[in-house]
Amino acid sequence: MFNPFFINQGPFDILDLLKSIKTKTQNSKKHNINDIKDLISADVNSITFFHSKKYQEQAKKTNASFCITTDNLKNYLPTKCKPIIVENVLLATSFVTKKFYPNSIEDEFDNSVNNIDKLKFDKTVNFGKNVLIGNNVKIGSNCLVGHNTIIEKNVQIGNNCKIGSNVIIRSSIIKDNVTILDNSVIGKKGFGFFPKSNQNLRYPHIGIVIINENCEIGCGATIDRGSMSNTEIGKNTFLDNQVHIAHNVKIGENTIIAGQVGIAGSSVIGNNVKIGGQSGISGHLKIGDNVDIAGGSGVIKNIPNNSKVMGYPAKNIRDFLKENR
Amino acid sequence: MFNPFFINQGPFDILDLLKSIKTKTQNSKKHNINDIKDLISADVNSITFFHSKKYQEQAKKTNASFCITTDNLKNYLPTKCKPIIVENVLLATSFVTKKFYPNSIEDEFDNSVNNIDKLKFDKTVNFGKNVLIGNNVKIGSNCLVGHNTIIEKNVQIGNNCKIGSNVIIRSSIIKDNVTILDNSVIGKKGFGFFPKSNQNLRYPHIGIVIINENCEIGCGATIDRGSMSNTEIGKNTFLDNQVHIAHNVKIGENTIIAGQVGIAGSSVIGNNVKIGGQSGISGHLKIGDNVDIAGGSGVIKNIPNNSKVMGYPAKNIRDFLKENR
Amino acid sequence: MFNPFFINQGPFDILDLLKSIKTKTQNSKKHNINDIKDLISADVNSITFFHSKKYQEQAKKTNASFCITTDNLKNYLPTKCKPIIVENVLLATSFVTKKFYPNSIEDEFDNSVNNIDKLKFDKTVNFGKNVLIGNNVKIGSNCLVGHNTIIEKNVQIGNNCKIGSNVIIRSSIIKDNVTILDNSVIGKKGFGFFPKSNQNLRYPHIGIVIINENCEIGCGATIDRGSMSNTEIGKNTFLDNQVHIAHNVKIGENTIIAGQVGIAGSSVIGNNVKIGGQSGISGHLKIGDNVDIAGGSGVIKNIPNNSKVMGYPAKNIRDFLKENR
Repeated sequence: MFNPFFINQGPFDILDLLKSIKTKTQNSKKHNINDIKDLISADVNSITFFHSKKYQEQAKKTNASFCITTDNLKNYLPTKCKPIIVENVLLATSFVTKKFYPNSIEDEFDNSVNNIDKLKFDKTVNFGKNVLIGNNVKIGSNCLVGHNTIIEKNVQIGNNCKIGSNVIIRSSIIKDNVTILDNSVIGKKGFGFFPKSNQNLRYPHIGIVIINENCEIGCGATIDRGSMSNTEIGKNTFLDNQVHIAHNVKIGENTIIAGQVGIAGSSVIGNNVKIGGQSGISGHLKIGDNVDIAGGSGVIKNIPNNSKVMGYPAKNIRDFLKENR
Repeated sequence: MFNPFFINQGPFDILDLLKSIKTKTQNSKKHNINDIKDLISADVNSITFFHSKKYQEQAKKTNASFCITTDNLKNYLPTKCKPIIVENVLLATSFVTKKFYPNSIEDEFDNSVNNIDKLKFDKTVNFGKNVLIGNNVKIGSNCLVGHNTIIEKNVQIGNNCKIGSNVIIRSSIIKDNVTILDNSVIGKKGFGFFPKSNQNLRYPHIGIVIINENCEIGCGATIDRGSMSNTEIGKNTFLDNQVHIAHNVKIGENTIIAGQVGIAGSSVIGNNVKIGGQSGISGHLKIGDNVDIAGGSGVIKNIPNNSKVMGYPAKNIRDFLKENR
Repeated sequence: MFNPFFINQGPFDILDLLKSIKTKTQNSKKHNINDIKDLISADVNSITFFHSKKYQEQAKKTNASFCITTDNLKNYLPTKCKPIIVENVLLATSFVTKKFYPNSIEDEFDNSVNNIDKLKFDKTVNFGKNVLIGNNVKIGSNCLVGHNTIIEKNVQIGNNCKIGSNVIIRSSIIKDNVTILDNSVIGKKGFGFFPKSNQNLRYPHIGIVIINENCEIGCGATIDRGSMSNTEIGKNTFLDNQVHIAHNVKIGENTIIAGQVGIAGSSVIGNNVKIGGQSGISGHLKIGDNVDIAGGSGVIKNIPNNSKVMGYPAKNIRDFLKENR
């Protein structure tokens, strides 16, 4: 994952990493670890994590040398991958991630910004008043950026993009021909933390937001960046006003999402999906291609391709309407 | 419809208009067309459109000389109105509208704005810091405009209005004694387009937003302007925070709309209606006068006057509560 | 209630107060009244109000010398408390409150603000561009305040707080270690008024917002201040994006509220409560401690401690899921 937003502080010796999660040294040999990655993208110098049977197929194939996991799950791992047994996998993963990416936990405002009229975007960007741009931001040609908009450091924006007024963009890559309307906030950290009495423990969010070509994002929308993977919106997908997209969500292409819809963390939405206004989709679900979700629905389980659903909990639309005549 | 926001580029010869929608010349005579209008407001020098049997009564009475329609519908038109037969009426209408009003399709920020303290509103407006005002904006006497608020070109605001901070207003007419609270966006184009693989086709929005006397609009509200007709809020209607009003919606007088309600496109809400928090109303519905909609309801059909409804789909409130004891 | 936001214009002679609500003088003796308070906090020099049998226990114990109430309710009052009989208790209370606190009715933007870089916060606050700070604002040490944020007069912010960009805070007290994310509006007056044809009558909001230690408030959230009591968020409670908290709501400690949840006026939420995304909670309810409310639920009655509920209307989650298999 290309990620200019969070600077990797590694490598770290595996012994140091184990210390940071206070596990007993289950390993006595030094080994430099470059990064923490998910099961699939990890290589021999990575540490990974495995917290649910759901990911057993990926676990079997991981190339990581170390994996944070539980006693119950460790046997799915290949022999070349050493299990690091902990009680709470996600908590330990969070500690290790924090060591690699210490500034991915809080969303401090970017104090590198300058008013765009002091920068060299005159030829490529048609900009409004009070536009603030962080260090190393890239903006393509023929773009508009409205008044009071803030584009934080390292953000990349393609060609022919139209960014409205009062918009905030951080930790995001925006491709060509994207429209982002007024008052939306793109790339904020997700609502992810370990509940703890007196002081919840925020976990790192090193994923970014990627908005692909030809998308439109409505007014007042919030699209949170991912924790360990990216939040991504496929090409030519349109979001209406006041939509909320949580961390790690992936949305396919040519999808249409009406006003005030909310999609909870880590759900995956297919291509050519239509989601009616105010619908909600729970976390960690898979919504297939060509699915129609009627307005106001509450989706709490996976929906196969080519389905039409309605209701709360959402079911086949014909059944719902028959039962609710 | 008085509309200072979108400049009519007409007149156009009907032959040119036909070319723009690539229909065969079903008409060989020149005829200057001044505007595209709906069935009722069209006159002899207008072109109109007729796409659904629902509008047959209006179609019979239209004064337009030309009407974009289908083979199935053409016989409802009076003989003096020549049908222009197309496959997709709304798509063709969109192309013709775009020819008359080319800049009604995208919401580019208004780069005519200046800081209000450089303008001559000293005597009539009590304004905050960084207020941006576009060309030809009119603001009545005894108004407040909060910090960072943007009022784009040609907007008209009456007397005794209170506009909060971080508000964006475009393509809107605001009457006297209206309160608009912080962070709301009034007059953005609606979420209207023709879905098309790879690149959806946005259609024009030449309607405006009209907010009548004594209304209040809550924080973070979004009120979209209409496509071919206006979005209008009747006198003394109050909207709470985070309400979303889609394009072409008409809301009556003395209506109360609680937080997070969403009203989809083209619905018409009566007078003295109460809509509880988080309710949703589907598009193209008619909600009568004196209707009570309980919080959380999802309304998917018309509601007659003086009804009380609840549920999803919304039904008589007594029935709903009996079934859900 | 400590309240630096609304200046008490009292004392007033009880005879003047009676005149302001146009009741016949049911009392001929002069008596200086210092304040209007609720039944419990009122003292011998206060006027109070009693409008519903629900509050009969508090009424019996009030120390107020005068109480605005109805003929039906007056007998619950102790003999030392003189009833002031009116037709509409809340309307009369509103008039009296307005007399004591005339500027608590509208939310006019704070024109006392100055750009923070002209003020003396250099040592304690790390601030962005265009930050506006009102008179007499207190900000603790080690705080961040993002770009374009507005903190209105008399607001108090503790130590180690992180305020995002485009935030508006008024009439609020924020304790230590609180995070408030971008585009939220804290402390706006509630959506409270007496519906009246042609011109609704707004009532005073002299309550404030208190956000206790270690809380997080998401992007685009709105938290309204109270009318006669405060809106309060307990320690270590986290709110996700686009949450709406209405006036007078009290939320306990260690509570987690997911995206797009709405809580209507005067409801009380316990400690360790989890509220799933898009849930709505009606007004004047009591949600106990350790309650789980599944996403999308609509809660319309009180929920006892340690319950898990789901649905609309929300019921025991096992029953709901069984019925909706």
